[in-house]
Amino acid sequence: MRQSHLFTKTRKTAPKDEVAKNAQLLIRGGFIHKEMAGVYSYLPLGLRVLENIKRIVREEMSALGAQEIIMTALQRKELWETTSRWSDEVVDVWFKSQLRAGGEVGFGWSHEEPIADMMRSHVDSFRDLPIFVHQFQTKLRNELRAKSGIMRGREFVMNDMYSFCRGEEEHARFYDQTIEAYMRVFTRVGIGEDTFVTFASGGAFTKFSHEFQTVTETGEDVIYVHREKRLAINEEVLNDETLRELGVTREELQKVNTAEVGNIFNFGTQKSEDLGLVFKDEKGVSTPVWMGSYGIGVTRLMGLLVEKFSDEKGIVWPEEVAPLSVHLVSLAGGSSEVEKEAERVYELLAEHGIEVLFDDRDVRAGEKFADSDLIGIPLRLVVSEKSMAEGGVEMTTRANGASSLVPESNLIERIKKAGVRV
Amino acid sequence: MRQSHLFTKTRKTAPKDEVAKNAQLLIRGGFIHKEMAGVYSYLPLGLRVLENIKRIVREEMSALGAQEIIMTALQRKELWETTSRWSDEVVDVWFKSQLRAGGEVGFGWSHEEPIADMMRSHVDSFRDLPIFVHQFQTKLRNELRAKSGIMRGREFVMNDMYSFCRGEEEHARFYDQTIEAYMRVFTRVGIGEDTFVTFASGGAFTKFSHEFQTVTETGEDVIYVHREKRLAINEEVLNDETLRELGVTREELQKVNTAEVGNIFNFGTQKSEDLGLVFKDEKGVSTPVWMGSYGIGVTRLMGLLVEKFSDEKGIVWPEEVAPLSVHLVSLAGGSSEVEKEAERVYELLAEHGIEVLFDDRDVRAGEKFADSDLIGIPLRLVVSEKSMAEGGVEMTTRANGASSLVPESNLIERIKKAGVRV
Repeated sequence: MRQSHLFTKTRKTAPKDEVAKNAQLLIRGGFIHKEMAGVYSYLPLGLRVLENIKRIVREEMSALGAQEIIMTALQRKELWETTSRWSDEVVDVWFKSQLRAGGEVGFGWSHEEPIADMMRSHVDSFRDLPIFVHQFQTKLRNELRAKSGIMRGREFVMNDMYSFCRGEEEHARFYDQTIEAYMRVFTRVGIGEDTFVTFASGGAFTKFSHEFQTVTETGEDVIYVHREKRLAINEEVLNDETLRELGVTREELQKVNTAEVGNIFNFGTQKSEDLGLVFKDEKGVSTPVWMGSYGIGVTRLMGLLVEKFSDEKGIVWPEEVAPLSVHLVSLAGGSSEVEKEAERVYELLAEHGIEVLFDDRDVRAGEKFADSDLIGIPLRLVVSEKSMAEGGVEMTTRANGASSLVPESNLIERIKKAGVRV
Repeated sequence: MRQSHLFTKTRKTAPKDEVAKNAQLLIRGGFIHKEMAGVYSYLPLGLRVLENIKRIVREEMSALGAQEIIMTALQRKELWETTSRWSDEVVDVWFKSQLRAGGEVGFGWSHEEPIADMMRSHVDSFRDLPIFVHQFQTKLRNELRAKSGIMRGREFVMNDMYSFCRGEEEHARFYDQTIEAYMRVFTRVGIGEDTFVTFASGGAFTKFSHEFQTVTETGEDVIYVHREKRLAINEEVLNDETLRELGVTREELQKVNTAEVGNIFNFGTQKSEDLGLVFKDEKGVSTPVWMGSYGIGVTRLMGLLVEKFSDEKGIVWPEEVAPLSVHLVSLAGGSSEVEKEAERVYELLAEHGIEVLFDDRDVRAGEKFADSDLIGIPLRLVVSEKSMAEGGVEMTTRANGASSLVPESNLIERIKKAGVRV
């Protein structure tokens, strides 16, 4: 991708009303555009990051056997009344509107009800189960406050997965597999070390539910972490009984600020009973389905990565989610030799399937470097009169600033060694 | 994909309130689920078709130089007031809702205003133009009636592209290129012959706008077609002046029912003037941007394909959009020999990158064939005791029912010859 073709511009400052670091940097880098508080459009570079995160999640959900679908924003009032979740007193984040044809509709802040209802058309016998499905859905939530950039939006993308099982044991097995799959997602995007399966309050069917919490200074949540045992406890269930059960002491726990990046929840048979989602078991007896719900905040994850991986100069994208792998910067300064060499390197990288942002713009070197640091692509290659005189290309790692001159003959090998996604 | 794993079930009948053929067949085949009138979820097979159409559109938009973004559902009242399009009397398809934080928001039925507004942050000088962008957006429209299945929904996916140019000439060039690109899309999905660039009424800046209309019995529109000249005229501009200008006579035209699959519109500088989207020209003079808007109804296109390509048995997907390319049907009937052979063929196809739905279910042959016809995958392969005795696999083309026995050694070659997407 040629930077001269990319329509977005970097900015030296973020909008004054934007207080969250993630949104400030993403707006300045041209990744997103603020439509209103908590509502952001995704521009070409931002959409690439988003799609990379979705790709990782999709791969892990697919490995679990989950089938992808896409449900709707518009929601039927009658359906949500069945589970007593239509009322604004019960759910305070509904957007609702009048239908011109008469009646009211809601906008999907969650999809548990419609998916359980939909499954009634596809589940009949025990042979049809288990079923695992997931979707990447744009959720709409009428949040009172929206000051955390893309980490808590009024409109955001979520991966929500649902499981439909024949009983508690089958459910528990999938639930545990999902915990592992979710941790693989967090590891792949670069936050595995700092993300903890956190015990939180359960529901009617389980003592605990589980959250995935990632340590970050600006996090809205507080949890208590046991780093060695890789577990954590939410404030609401931090009591002697929980400590005893998990085999840890209060003194071993460290209090940290975190952001919730995922959660998983066991409905047992409650939702199915409410909505009439049943199957005939092996004896022909009509039995309610065990249901679980599993969420990963996709856009939130993107915001969190910016919060955690950035410095005073800009963003430092982890390799697997970076919008592109290499930022090729041409410092031609009028030299057609340098221009030609940069074009050659660009073609070489393309031939090897390496995703490159090619800064072929006619602007000052200082501006190019500042933009490159702000945009945060993992590896930077500079072609200049100096690098050519020294017989190669200057390669710099965004994360640590380490720089070296690489002869063109070694370039592809060195790029691949640097762990670039190909 | 194993059919035993696919959670969706086919149905013998469609919901009674569903009158549109496209939705009837898509629901029966397990492609979509009806949430309410004009609102449908996309299940695994349906999502695959949708993604195939998007892939084709994306390739053609990218070839035009358009950059992909994704805007938001939530819309700012103040922005739309600027162009006098907030009022329900002007735009009668708004969904609107109260913000808990105070004030009103709308839900995106169009994105012309927000994209022009967003471009103000990225356009400064003539050097920044032209810019072409597109998105696949879920549009929300408060339609009074919604009886055409996925062809006119309250919630639907659209590809909307926008052009921002320095003047009329640059705009006209891109506008013409887009007409060609859109026709390539329609040709690739199989409706090129029946789709006509149709003259419709223009706006302040042009005499005509252009619609892409596809001949179909159940179409809501009526146009007048000149098949040889590959042009058509919308009823509203069918007059002597238009006929003279296009060099055709009324007698040469054929009146047909059509569905609109795309439209393109020239705003001139009107929208930019309203919203303050200007650039400094080569003399440093502040000049409004020329803007164009270009839409393809993605879900509508999917519905139209079903309307046009189906028979009494079910859907007949065109190759490029089919959910999978081959339907492999195992008629084992308890024979482990046949089962093994079918598994072997399944692996063979996978090795060659062919997308297969493998009917490995333990159900009657009649049910398998009925489902296969309903789902409408272009090529069917049957492995049975009979086919094995005859030394091969039975291959049937869904479109014409032509059937032949293919030795396994020739299978891949024959499949590729049949024009399968690999």
